[in-house]
Amino acid sequence: MSQESWLPTLKTDTPEEGYELAVKLARKAVGMTQPDESIRKKLRPVYANNADSLTLASQVVAINFQTVAAANDYWKE
Amino acid sequence: MSQESWLPTLKTDTPEEGYELAVKLARKAVGMTQPDESIRKKLRPVYANNADSLTLASQVVAINFQTVAAANDYWKE
Amino acid sequence: MSQESWLPTLKTDTPEEGYELAVKLARKAVGMTQPDESIRKKLRPVYANNADSLTLASQVVAINFQTVAAANDYWKE
Amino acid sequence: MSQESWLPTLKTDTPEEGYELAVKLARKAVGMTQPDESIRKKLRPVYANNADSLTLASQVVAINFQTVAAANDYWKE
Amino acid sequence: MSQESWLPTLKTDTPEEGYELAVKLARKAVGMTQPDESIRKKLRPVYANNADSLTLASQVVAINFQTVAAANDYWKE
Amino acid sequence: MSQESWLPTLKTDTPEEGYELAVKLARKAVGMTQPDESIRKKLRPVYANNADSLTLASQVVAINFQTVAAANDYWKE
Repeated sequence: MSQESWLPTLKTDTPEEGYELAVKLARKAVGMTQPDESIRKKLRPVYANNADSLTLASQVVAINFQTVAAANDYWKE
Repeated sequence: MSQESWLPTLKTDTPEEGYELAVKLARKAVGMTQPDESIRKKLRPVYANNADSLTLASQVVAINFQTVAAANDYWKE
Repeated sequence: MSQESWLPTLKTDTPEEGYELAVKLARKAVGMTQPDESIRKKLRPVYANNADSLTLASQVVAINFQTVAAANDYWKE
Repeated sequence: MSQESWLPTLKTDTPEEGYELAVKLARKAVGMTQPDESIRKKLRPVYANNADSLTLASQVVAINFQTVAAANDYWKE
Repeated sequence: MSQESWLPTLKTDTPEEGYELAVKLARKAVGMTQPDESIRKKLRPVYANNADSLTLASQVVAINFQTVAAANDYWKE
Repeated sequence: MSQESWLPTLKTDTPEEGYELAVKLARKAVGMTQPDESIRKKLRPVYANNADSLTLASQVVAINFQTVAAANDYWKE
């Protein structure tokens, strides 16, 4: 496993950390499609002030959280 | 497990509480994208009075409820 | 389990009742986001006469039906 | 099981029939939201001539087909 | 199983063929909603030249690929 | 298994490579719908500078990542 990997594992200690990983996964694809950080920063206030954009962003987190939660067997123990 | 965690577990006693947790999960990502509560409050009447925005919000809850329900083995017992 | 719960269980006797529960789940999130029934009633003709709104509503039901169907082991027996 | 049920079972003999059931499930929610068939008929040419509407409709079928396929154990045997 | 079926099985020999089947499933629902091929051909350049339409189409394939991949146990062997 | 296949397997060594495969799966469907690379290149700046387009693209990656992660049993070992 690379020391440099941004995603060495899907395992997290807690559900909260799992949720944060889901957010990270959602943002990663955005960064891969638009690698220019200055443009992403300009876009941020656009969607952060639009209700539907925020809901859509929450949806992507929700889908990724399904994956992370399953990978952690829902932190059942 | 942190006493402060907003998400200490995905376990709930009942399906109804699980649904409430799904709503909380949906809102959390919105709050992480737009941390300014005053802006979120201004956006609320916009989407709460738009049919498609409400449906979209319901969709995010539905996706999160899939996760919570699976985590609780669908409250089968 | 509360006598008052709107969601005491995900179990239903038949697939058809499961589908009705999925519709109920979809509507519940709408009601939680827009609790004012008079506003919801005003919005209803808007989306009930728009093809894409109807498809979007059907999508939320489909996602919730996945959950209900899994909870009932797809009514296999 | 009611003789009148529009959804007596999620079981189908073949994948093709399962796909048809997924289409039926997608349309059912539309019919429950807009019960007036004359309005639905007026809406049909609107979305049947719009590329994104067709894709969106295909998406709802895809979600329902996931459910039907799982219910049939993917017709593996 | 009908010799004529467009979907005799969800089994494929390889992931690549599974992906092609997912594309076929996505297109089938479009064809069932808009059976007139001449209209579908007119719509094609519309969405094939629109970025969001292409992403939306990719999403439907992704959902169907989940189903096909599960049906093939992810071609693990 | 063809030497030429763009998708010989869903297995990857690490979660990070799995995520890259999910991106590849998302782009493949776009390429199959719009095979003309010059058009795709013209569309890229359109969606790469639109917040909602980026979120939508991230969503397709998320759905494909669910498939890849499941195929790798979430890289649990």
